[in-house]
Amino acid sequence: MPKKIFFTPGPSALYFTVEEHLKQATRAQVMEINHRSKQAESYYKEASDNLKALMDIPEDYQVFFLSSATEIWERQLQNLVIEKSFHYCLGAFSNRFYDFAVKWGINAEKSESPFGELPNTDPELIPDDTELITLALNETSTGVSFPQEDIYKIRERHPEALIAVDGVSALPVLDLDFNKVDSVYFSVQKCFGLPAGLGVWIVSPRAIQKAEKKLALGHSIGAYQALPNLLKNGLKNQTTFTANVLNIFLLSRVTSDMLEKGIDVIKREAKYKAALLNHLVENHPKLNHFVADRKLRSKTVTVANTMEGSSEILEKLDQKGFVLGNGYGNYKGKQIRIASFPTHSKEQMELLVDVINATI
Amino acid sequence: MPKKIFFTPGPSALYFTVEEHLKQATRAQVMEINHRSKQAESYYKEASDNLKALMDIPEDYQVFFLSSATEIWERQLQNLVIEKSFHYCLGAFSNRFYDFAVKWGINAEKSESPFGELPNTDPELIPDDTELITLALNETSTGVSFPQEDIYKIRERHPEALIAVDGVSALPVLDLDFNKVDSVYFSVQKCFGLPAGLGVWIVSPRAIQKAEKKLALGHSIGAYQALPNLLKNGLKNQTTFTANVLNIFLLSRVTSDMLEKGIDVIKREAKYKAALLNHLVENHPKLNHFVADRKLRSKTVTVANTMEGSSEILEKLDQKGFVLGNGYGNYKGKQIRIASFPTHSKEQMELLVDVINATI
Repeated sequence: MPKKIFFTPGPSALYFTVEEHLKQATRAQVMEINHRSKQAESYYKEASDNLKALMDIPEDYQVFFLSSATEIWERQLQNLVIEKSFHYCLGAFSNRFYDFAVKWGINAEKSESPFGELPNTDPELIPDDTELITLALNETSTGVSFPQEDIYKIRERHPEALIAVDGVSALPVLDLDFNKVDSVYFSVQKCFGLPAGLGVWIVSPRAIQKAEKKLALGHSIGAYQALPNLLKNGLKNQTTFTANVLNIFLLSRVTSDMLEKGIDVIKREAKYKAALLNHLVENHPKLNHFVADRKLRSKTVTVANTMEGSSEILEKLDQKGFVLGNGYGNYKGKQIRIASFPTHSKEQMELLVDVINATI
Repeated sequence: MPKKIFFTPGPSALYFTVEEHLKQATRAQVMEINHRSKQAESYYKEASDNLKALMDIPEDYQVFFLSSATEIWERQLQNLVIEKSFHYCLGAFSNRFYDFAVKWGINAEKSESPFGELPNTDPELIPDDTELITLALNETSTGVSFPQEDIYKIRERHPEALIAVDGVSALPVLDLDFNKVDSVYFSVQKCFGLPAGLGVWIVSPRAIQKAEKKLALGHSIGAYQALPNLLKNGLKNQTTFTANVLNIFLLSRVTSDMLEKGIDVIKREAKYKAALLNHLVENHPKLNHFVADRKLRSKTVTVANTMEGSSEILEKLDQKGFVLGNGYGNYKGKQIRIASFPTHSKEQMELLVDVINATI
C-alpha cells in the first residue's frame, strides 16, 4: 500500500529526513546507550544549540527536554505560580491550560473569546499582581494566531509578570522575540515533524529565579522537574530522567537539516503555502474561512468550515492518500484543518489543492 | 563498525525483534497517525491485554501509559497520598521515591538499609495510618531483590494501606501476585528491551477509589494524569496526552513476542542466566558479590565488587563489544553491574562469561 501524506495538524507528516535518521539511530545504537553518556549529552547539546540558532534564543535562556507540552503546562504552574495566573483562552488548547490552573488550586483569571476569534488583548485587563500570563501563539484547534505585537505590549505594561508562550504548531515558523517572554514550549510532533513523545521547554533566567523564590518561600515546586533540578542537569546537557533519547537525537538531526535549509527559506515557504490554502478556501464553493479576520489566520494551520459536513470530504481525500485534520471538539464533522508545516513541500501543497478541487 | 551488545541495566539491549518492528512502524506510519485514532487505540489495547496475560494481572486492574517510571513516582504521591507514606529504602531508586515524597510535602517515613542489603521488613514498623507503602521489587542500583513473601506479609498486616511496587528491571521476569498490591509501575527500557520514553502504570480499583476520595475531600490530584482522567481515557484505550505512540506500538509487538515464546521459558532462562553470572562472580579471583545474602540476589541485575576498580575492566570489555554497567553513584569505578534481561540469550550470556574470564 502506498504511504499516505499526513496534513493533520499534529501528529503530522514526519520531517522528510526522519526515516533516514532513524536508520542512523539504529546503526549508532542510540536506543541502547545510557542517557547520561557522552553520546547522549552530545545529542542534547546539538539539539539545544540548533534550536537557539533557529529561533534566535538568547544565550542565557535554557532548553530543557520533558515528555510533552501537556506536561509543561503543569510544570509551569508548579514552578512559576504561587497564587495568581492569567490566561488568554482562544480555543481547546489555550483553554486547557486555564483548566489545569484551576485544578491545581491556583487563582486563575482569563480573557476568553469564541472559537475562531481573538480574546480582548488589552493589557489593562490583567491584574497587576498576576505572576504568570499564558497564551498560545498559534491555537491549533481554531487556526487563530496571537499577534506578536500584542504580546510585546502586554510585556511593556506588565514587566514584572512572566509571560508563557505555547509555541506548539507555531515554532520555528512564526517569529517570536524571546527576549520579551520567559517560558516557551512545544511538542515536537507538529512543525518539527518528529514522532510524539518529547516536549521542549525554553526558559529565561527570570523564570528560574521565580521557581527558586517559590521554593525558598516554603512552597513545593515538585521534585525531578523542578526548575533548579532541570537547570542542574541541563547545564551538563542531561535530562532529569531517562528521557526519550531517540527523539532528542532525531531533533538534533532535523534542526540541523532546517538550519542547512535556512530558517528564512522555511518562513518564506510557509507564507507561500498559507497563501495557497487561503486562496483555496476563499474560492472553493463548498468551503469558507472559520477565522473571519484574515490578519489572525495562522500560517501553519488553516481551518475551513465545510458547507456539507467534513466527514465525507475527509474520507474521500483519505482514499486518495491525503490525510487532513477534522474539526476539533464541537467542530468535528463540520470543519477541516490543514497543516502546512516545514516538512510539507510547496509541490505537495499545490498537489493537495488540486486534489481538493478535483474531489469536492 | 560491528554493533556492541549492551548488558547495561537500563537502557539496555533492545529486544531482539525491535529493529524489525521499527521497520514495520515506518511502513504502517505509526509515527504519523493521530493518537486518538482507531489504529493507535488498537496498539494501546494490545499492549494492555498482552501485559495482563504475561503477568497474570486481574481483569479489573487498569494499565495506563505515562512518560517514565520517574513520572509515576510523582503521580502516585499526587493521587494516592493525602498525608502519610512509608518507603522501603534499599538503594538509589527506592531512596529517590522517598526523597520525592519529602519534596512534595508529605509526611514520609522509611525503613532503610545500607546498599547491598535489605531493610527491616517487619510490618510492625509501619504506622497504622500509613496510606501508601512503597518498595522496589528489584533495586537496580544494588542488585537486591525484595522478597515477595515479605510484601504479602505487609499486606496482611496493613490491609487498608495501598502497596506500590516499583517493577523496573524486575517485571515480567520476577513473580508478583498483583492481587496483593495496588500500584505497579515500570519503564520499558529495562526488561522489555524498548527505547526509553514510556512508563507503564498498573493500578487496582482501590487505588482509583483513593484518588477519587482525595479529590472529593478538596485536595488537588493534578490535572491530566489524575487517576479519574487516566481511567476515563484508558477505558477508551487512549492516553491522556499525545503520548509516545511508537513505543506503545513496539510494546504491543514485543509483549506479543514474549507471549509466543512463553513467560515460563523466559523465567526459566532468567534463572539459568543468573546462575551463570553468580557462578562467574563467585569463582573469579578479581570479583566478589556485592549482595552477600544469596537469597536476596537479583535474577536480572548482578552486581559485583571489583578488587582493582571497574573502569579498566569496563573499558576492555567495551573494546571487545560488550557494554556492562558501572557501579551506581558512590560505587562508580568500584563495581560492575550486569543485566540479564529477556533479550539476552543464554548463548550471549555464556559468551559474556567466557569473554570476562579471558579479559580480566
